[in-house]
Amino acid sequence: MKRTLGVCYYPEHWPEEEWADNARRMVETGLTWVRIGEFAWQRMEPASGRLELEWLDRAIDVLGAAGLKVILGTPTATPPRWMLNKHPDMNIVTPDGVRRKFGSRRNYCFSHLGYRQECARITRILAERYGKNPHIAAWQTDNEYGCHDTTLSYSTHARDGFRDWLAQKYQSTDALNRAWGNVFWSLDYNTFDQIELPNLTVTDPSPAHVMAFRRYSSDQVVAFNRVQTEILRAHTDAPLIHNYMGRITEFDHYTVGEDLDIASWDSYPLGFLSDRLEGTPEHKARYLRQGDPDMQAFHHDLYRSVGRGRWWIMEQQPGPVNWAPYNPAPLPGMERLWAWEAFAHGAETVCFFRWRQPAFAQEQMHTALLRPDGVDAPALAEVLQVSKEISTIPNAGTATARVALIFDYTSAWAWDVQPQGADFDYFRLCMSHYRALRRAGLSVDILPADTQNLNQYKLVLAPGLMVIPPSLMAALTTFQGTALIGPRSNVKTDEMSISVPLGPNLPNLDSKVVNTESIPPNCAIALQNGGTIRHWFEHLEGEAPIRWSTADGRPAIVSNGNLNYLAGWFDDETLFKLIAETCVDLEMEVTDLPDGLRIRDTQTHRFYVNYAPEDLEHEGLKVPAAGVVWKAF
Amino acid sequence: MKRTLGVCYYPEHWPEEEWADNARRMVETGLTWVRIGEFAWQRMEPASGRLELEWLDRAIDVLGAAGLKVILGTPTATPPRWMLNKHPDMNIVTPDGVRRKFGSRRNYCFSHLGYRQECARITRILAERYGKNPHIAAWQTDNEYGCHDTTLSYSTHARDGFRDWLAQKYQSTDALNRAWGNVFWSLDYNTFDQIELPNLTVTDPSPAHVMAFRRYSSDQVVAFNRVQTEILRAHTDAPLIHNYMGRITEFDHYTVGEDLDIASWDSYPLGFLSDRLEGTPEHKARYLRQGDPDMQAFHHDLYRSVGRGRWWIMEQQPGPVNWAPYNPAPLPGMERLWAWEAFAHGAETVCFFRWRQPAFAQEQMHTALLRPDGVDAPALAEVLQVSKEISTIPNAGTATARVALIFDYTSAWAWDVQPQGADFDYFRLCMSHYRALRRAGLSVDILPADTQNLNQYKLVLAPGLMVIPPSLMAALTTFQGTALIGPRSNVKTDEMSISVPLGPNLPNLDSKVVNTESIPPNCAIALQNGGTIRHWFEHLEGEAPIRWSTADGRPAIVSNGNLNYLAGWFDDETLFKLIAETCVDLEMEVTDLPDGLRIRDTQTHRFYVNYAPEDLEHEGLKVPAAGVVWKAF
Amino acid sequence: MKRTLGVCYYPEHWPEEEWADNARRMVETGLTWVRIGEFAWQRMEPASGRLELEWLDRAIDVLGAAGLKVILGTPTATPPRWMLNKHPDMNIVTPDGVRRKFGSRRNYCFSHLGYRQECARITRILAERYGKNPHIAAWQTDNEYGCHDTTLSYSTHARDGFRDWLAQKYQSTDALNRAWGNVFWSLDYNTFDQIELPNLTVTDPSPAHVMAFRRYSSDQVVAFNRVQTEILRAHTDAPLIHNYMGRITEFDHYTVGEDLDIASWDSYPLGFLSDRLEGTPEHKARYLRQGDPDMQAFHHDLYRSVGRGRWWIMEQQPGPVNWAPYNPAPLPGMERLWAWEAFAHGAETVCFFRWRQPAFAQEQMHTALLRPDGVDAPALAEVLQVSKEISTIPNAGTATARVALIFDYTSAWAWDVQPQGADFDYFRLCMSHYRALRRAGLSVDILPADTQNLNQYKLVLAPGLMVIPPSLMAALTTFQGTALIGPRSNVKTDEMSISVPLGPNLPNLDSKVVNTESIPPNCAIALQNGGTIRHWFEHLEGEAPIRWSTADGRPAIVSNGNLNYLAGWFDDETLFKLIAETCVDLEMEVTDLPDGLRIRDTQTHRFYVNYAPEDLEHEGLKVPAAGVVWKAF
Repeated sequence: MKRTLGVCYYPEHWPEEEWADNARRMVETGLTWVRIGEFAWQRMEPASGRLELEWLDRAIDVLGAAGLKVILGTPTATPPRWMLNKHPDMNIVTPDGVRRKFGSRRNYCFSHLGYRQECARITRILAERYGKNPHIAAWQTDNEYGCHDTTLSYSTHARDGFRDWLAQKYQSTDALNRAWGNVFWSLDYNTFDQIELPNLTVTDPSPAHVMAFRRYSSDQVVAFNRVQTEILRAHTDAPLIHNYMGRITEFDHYTVGEDLDIASWDSYPLGFLSDRLEGTPEHKARYLRQGDPDMQAFHHDLYRSVGRGRWWIMEQQPGPVNWAPYNPAPLPGMERLWAWEAFAHGAETVCFFRWRQPAFAQEQMHTALLRPDGVDAPALAEVLQVSKEISTIPNAGTATARVALIFDYTSAWAWDVQPQGADFDYFRLCMSHYRALRRAGLSVDILPADTQNLNQYKLVLAPGLMVIPPSLMAALTTFQGTALIGPRSNVKTDEMSISVPLGPNLPNLDSKVVNTESIPPNCAIALQNGGTIRHWFEHLEGEAPIRWSTADGRPAIVSNGNLNYLAGWFDDETLFKLIAETCVDLEMEVTDLPDGLRIRDTQTHRFYVNYAPEDLEHEGLKVPAAGVVWKAF
Repeated sequence: MKRTLGVCYYPEHWPEEEWADNARRMVETGLTWVRIGEFAWQRMEPASGRLELEWLDRAIDVLGAAGLKVILGTPTATPPRWMLNKHPDMNIVTPDGVRRKFGSRRNYCFSHLGYRQECARITRILAERYGKNPHIAAWQTDNEYGCHDTTLSYSTHARDGFRDWLAQKYQSTDALNRAWGNVFWSLDYNTFDQIELPNLTVTDPSPAHVMAFRRYSSDQVVAFNRVQTEILRAHTDAPLIHNYMGRITEFDHYTVGEDLDIASWDSYPLGFLSDRLEGTPEHKARYLRQGDPDMQAFHHDLYRSVGRGRWWIMEQQPGPVNWAPYNPAPLPGMERLWAWEAFAHGAETVCFFRWRQPAFAQEQMHTALLRPDGVDAPALAEVLQVSKEISTIPNAGTATARVALIFDYTSAWAWDVQPQGADFDYFRLCMSHYRALRRAGLSVDILPADTQNLNQYKLVLAPGLMVIPPSLMAALTTFQGTALIGPRSNVKTDEMSISVPLGPNLPNLDSKVVNTESIPPNCAIALQNGGTIRHWFEHLEGEAPIRWSTADGRPAIVSNGNLNYLAGWFDDETLFKLIAETCVDLEMEVTDLPDGLRIRDTQTHRFYVNYAPEDLEHEGLKVPAAGVVWKAF
Repeated sequence: MKRTLGVCYYPEHWPEEEWADNARRMVETGLTWVRIGEFAWQRMEPASGRLELEWLDRAIDVLGAAGLKVILGTPTATPPRWMLNKHPDMNIVTPDGVRRKFGSRRNYCFSHLGYRQECARITRILAERYGKNPHIAAWQTDNEYGCHDTTLSYSTHARDGFRDWLAQKYQSTDALNRAWGNVFWSLDYNTFDQIELPNLTVTDPSPAHVMAFRRYSSDQVVAFNRVQTEILRAHTDAPLIHNYMGRITEFDHYTVGEDLDIASWDSYPLGFLSDRLEGTPEHKARYLRQGDPDMQAFHHDLYRSVGRGRWWIMEQQPGPVNWAPYNPAPLPGMERLWAWEAFAHGAETVCFFRWRQPAFAQEQMHTALLRPDGVDAPALAEVLQVSKEISTIPNAGTATARVALIFDYTSAWAWDVQPQGADFDYFRLCMSHYRALRRAGLSVDILPADTQNLNQYKLVLAPGLMVIPPSLMAALTTFQGTALIGPRSNVKTDEMSISVPLGPNLPNLDSKVVNTESIPPNCAIALQNGGTIRHWFEHLEGEAPIRWSTADGRPAIVSNGNLNYLAGWFDDETLFKLIAETCVDLEMEVTDLPDGLRIRDTQTHRFYVNYAPEDLEHEGLKVPAAGVVWKAF
């Protein structure tokens, strides 16, 4: 399969007479795909039931005639204003109990069944009209589920849906009371109708209560999406895609992904660095115009998993954006670097957001491939360069990874509900382990917790995994490689209680977590041979051999040779040391990449990307600042 | 009276067949007391009026049969869910006007008279049933009044109650308008029904208005508690106790205490250090696993006063807790240290919270004496050690203090209502003075503002005392020792106006506060002989002799030899210097304890507790890190 | 015209028998003016329609008889409590949708027409009664419009008024949809009644939507004020004044000022330094007791413009206030310095707030010229000194400035709506440019954006000017001096879209802003010849000659010799260097004043004010710390 490029386009924003010229310039830039339609509900249906789709017919014709493949988005992320007349209570409600208003996007509550039916209706209309259209080569459902904190809604619709969901799951309040431990603080319920959403309590609600609501809320996203995919499947053979957003963990992307053919994500490296990534001010200053060296790769590997091998970037940052606290411009070369890094991780397609910067509305300060005046923006030349380069390198697929990292949405919810330490965050924990793997030059697969087969891997990591499901436990039991489990792994039941017997309960590893500490940022626990534990430390008890100890002689890692349990969150340097040491034991190739340099193998080539602001050398290759080079094996 | 130990236990959380074994292990650990029942309303009364107390009968029997004395808690901090069906508007309302929801605890509004009657009803049921039960050796009312910001409620019940309270107090709006100065900003009222609670105003409401509401709110806690004590008194001779929470100042503990026999408090040294105490990051890192060296002692001395000599620790932190921003484990030895420090300050009993860590619900990460799997947790051995040690030392009572510090809840409200400087906090001010006394090795009594007799004392401190009541003023007039009054003392009227003539109006001390400054943290006012004033500085005028001056020649302390007025908040080092200098003048024994070491005398022994993470020496004694030693006089 | 002094006085706060003595002491202090009445509505009208103005008659008589000129304030900032019975929904609503309560001041919503009529009624009553009173020499409308965030209200009255305003402006929703770019995110409206206020949206509402609401809200302040001025004009010839508050930018002061004769502002230098000014902790510590050296002057120059030459200080801080985070006392001398600095900038009158400190209510900790006990406070002697000094120096008016800075309220709203960088603030941007001018010793005029004539000036600055209106553009086209435009100037349309062709579109300057960066505080862009760009950097394209470049060769300033466009926000040192360099080119006198020293010329004298805490020398003159000296030309 050939690597391809694409772009997001809003024909409704521009005079129809310019469409053809735009399409021509897209093709000249080497673009194959164009995404349209996902925010155009109001133009498709200006009043309830009054459809006006002829403009869309023509837009598809013009784009298709120019040789572009069209991705058509269902427009359900932006219901028109008239929708509120039909469904006045459809909007999302905040944890403070305030109903959000119309005037931006994603204002709907996932639990509102009336709105869900409206989405089914418009999806069916589009599916019937365009399902067999030869230019429509893919469909996107909605847009960026969960963005702007929209997964969790505290509406009466959510409350009623939650009660039904609980009744289905537990069948009786007695069962629910036992499962949640409601004897604590006299919290027992007599009927399901007594159960409120877990907001506005005086102090913490029961973690089991909140976890149930988190699961319910994730299920609503799955159900909402499925309504659309079922309709689309009945009318089209084109692949179905959703564009996930970086570091959104409030719903289970794997489960949504099961109803889709391709996973895609929206990659905004500079926005994410500024807005949603831990890091010292020095780190953020160094990578101000490049983005974090591991954030994109983590998501590439994640969505390759969510898409069961098939994944895209649906939106690639093309220059400064408008929504992060600070919005610098990327270094020249970064558009090319980001695109090639995605391809190296197995992306089929990289689409840029968006074709032309609008002079108006919320995203007027969000750059594009064209400036507001229609002139080429800086990113365009880099896109053109990539479009030429992709013809020169065969896409034999990304490398088969020997290392896997388990990433589990339920665990993200669990530790969000019960951090126990103010800076304990599941994504951050996983990212710190991922960083160490990347620094060691390893190609990584990210896997869901219900993975059943680890045969491909020599090294498996599972930090912070709330529960090791039976299938994964079975796989670990026969696993021949090395597993690094923990900290805080398999210490809970599914109902968010502490496991008794105490976890992690790993096969052939006699070790229990008998006490847990969370530690402030300016404190650390020293290890015997250098390095520290930060944030989190578990006291282990048992006969398991100690691999690493703290300076005062307590277990930091216990190991049966094959399975290891990490009792703490190691600092970055120490995590790298652990990975390197483990790889040596496993006779795996390992390196220590300079700060900013990263590598990723495909079946045929090794790619070197340099996020640093200075040129770097590795394996005899000079990689320019903000540059990418590759070498065939 | 023998010092005793105890524990909190929740028989309703555990299978009945395990109770006897638990009781046996408690006794083997040397425990005398077991507190039960305080969160079990739902199990006592699963539906309104349907009482199920047989399990409680049996639990008391089992515990009593094992030789334990039972403290029975009224379960009113956790009304069952069915209570809301009867009283849908009983929940507390936040300052933002949002009604809190069921799902945790302490959700009731103190002003809701319907709920108060429900509490009277369940208290009467328990009192009638267990008032003469020989195993019930004490009663606890409710649990941790004021915890989770629950003293102040902005409900319509509070509003109506407040209006009645104002009408009772002022009799006419004219009187109220004059008292509050409502001519200012056209704030006069014509009827009591026009008066709202002082929340949601555009800018500050009148300080007199807020103070009245603070007094009203404190009165509701007193009234709420009294409903229970009056019922209990009619049925039992066992002592009545409430378990206060650390650094809760929103209601008057002295007044609540007047209706009780014993004061107790819940001591969580590591949680408090992390969550509710000012301190540099270095200080907090040093004492991360020990707690602040003065925070516990302050409360010990406070509750000895609230209990008129009789006081307990009802809940002692047994390991990491779940509710502070960071939750480290205590150093080995700290359980013993904390217990002995409490005994040295005169505690009759130290109870640990709790017997066994539950695997479920909100406090599953809160450690206990037993782990969730029933195995001994680290604290248990230390409790056992203390239980053995208490037999070896006679409890002749704590030392008679020669130093008193006035601590006044009304003043805490006053400066909360009108801080005038962003970091002016009454508790913090008192604690900084208390620290200096402790560093000097002094045993301190904490006294209410209406103290009438100071004969016992050589040194009295009254920082930040809003009003010196007539009785205290009389006592000061004849006081033979040295008093250190101020800063910000006796400068207000009861109605939260500035006193005219200007305060402090001390006998035989011609000095007026004519101007006041609050100062940011990075600024300080230098003193003539070294040291600085921080946070707060008052300009004094008058003929009173100047004891200390600022570097630019303004009075920092004025003194008539006996009474001193402090014009500022001195830094810690300077406060210590002042105390030391004053003690030398008074020919009192004084020392300069190393950082972390503290001493407290009983009638027969001196106790040395070492909060530092390193061994320390004092008076020829080596006190190990996290250790306590004692020496008979 | 003679410079005069005055004071704010509240006869309703003090016994009538003291009024005459107070008046006598005012006169003895050299005061000419006394402002009364602005918070006394309740005493004027204790119940709806029941007028009691006799006390006010007598107060005016007493003050007038003593020789004082009275400024009478309309009391509309503090509606009495009974007003809420008539207009229960008159209160302001927060962005969170919460209605504020009675109990402080400024609780009304500017859009409430019923309250506006009440204000007309009381104004008419006062105007009819006192319009010809010989002692009433000026009128003040309301008090501090916009203080306590009261310009923007999210009430249903505001919503309805906004819809009408939009309908008037756009005539059709089609026009509005096009103007706002509502095709974006399906935001089109079909009727004006569908348009909500732009609060509580899920993510950003359209910037055009918010800007329209900001304009509407400012218009309501103008309309509210105009109701009063139209009534007053019909009954009095005395000048009409409003007292604006420092750094309040939510409504257009120039437009309000058009209906008034004199602009005045309330100057609280220490409060502003602590509460509402950017600055390092070191800067704030250095000027703790003096205030920022440029903050007062900026407002002086601003209100000279708002008042079209006539301006006052209506309230001058007399000592510590009560409302800032920290409230220190001024250094001795500052009252005199502040007063003289105001006179040097052309103030006619400086009034102090207030005569006597009340012992009661919200501002009891706000000092005054008299202490609460009636004794002279420290400021009084300085006021007396100034009153003597003003007789000794002729007031020939402030100097004719050769430098102008454009300050535009619409731009403040624009960049508040769309900061694009977390620390981009329009006032801060203008202040940083103003500081550089002041450090260079220049006398500055501040001008509105619709200025039509720049002939008087040699140097004009326009940083951050959203739109250059046609009249200013015309003036710039023929301007003979040097203009420093930008950064972020003339890059938008009036409808808050990006200008196409891309701005700044300056005459004879071929340069476009093709890309924009916002930069975090710890990052900076180096310039070729030293110095840095902070916060904001624009990428310029075009043939315009480059005056300054970045270290990597991009334009930092482009210039046609006469018009310059600044591509970034220069650091303070660099801004000063630019000003100095430009002045040398213009053959203007320029200096580099020591930190804290500032100068301002009148027609006859140069004034040297020293905000520093140490003595400074300049031009052979020694200026004592906190001192002011002057020298005739």
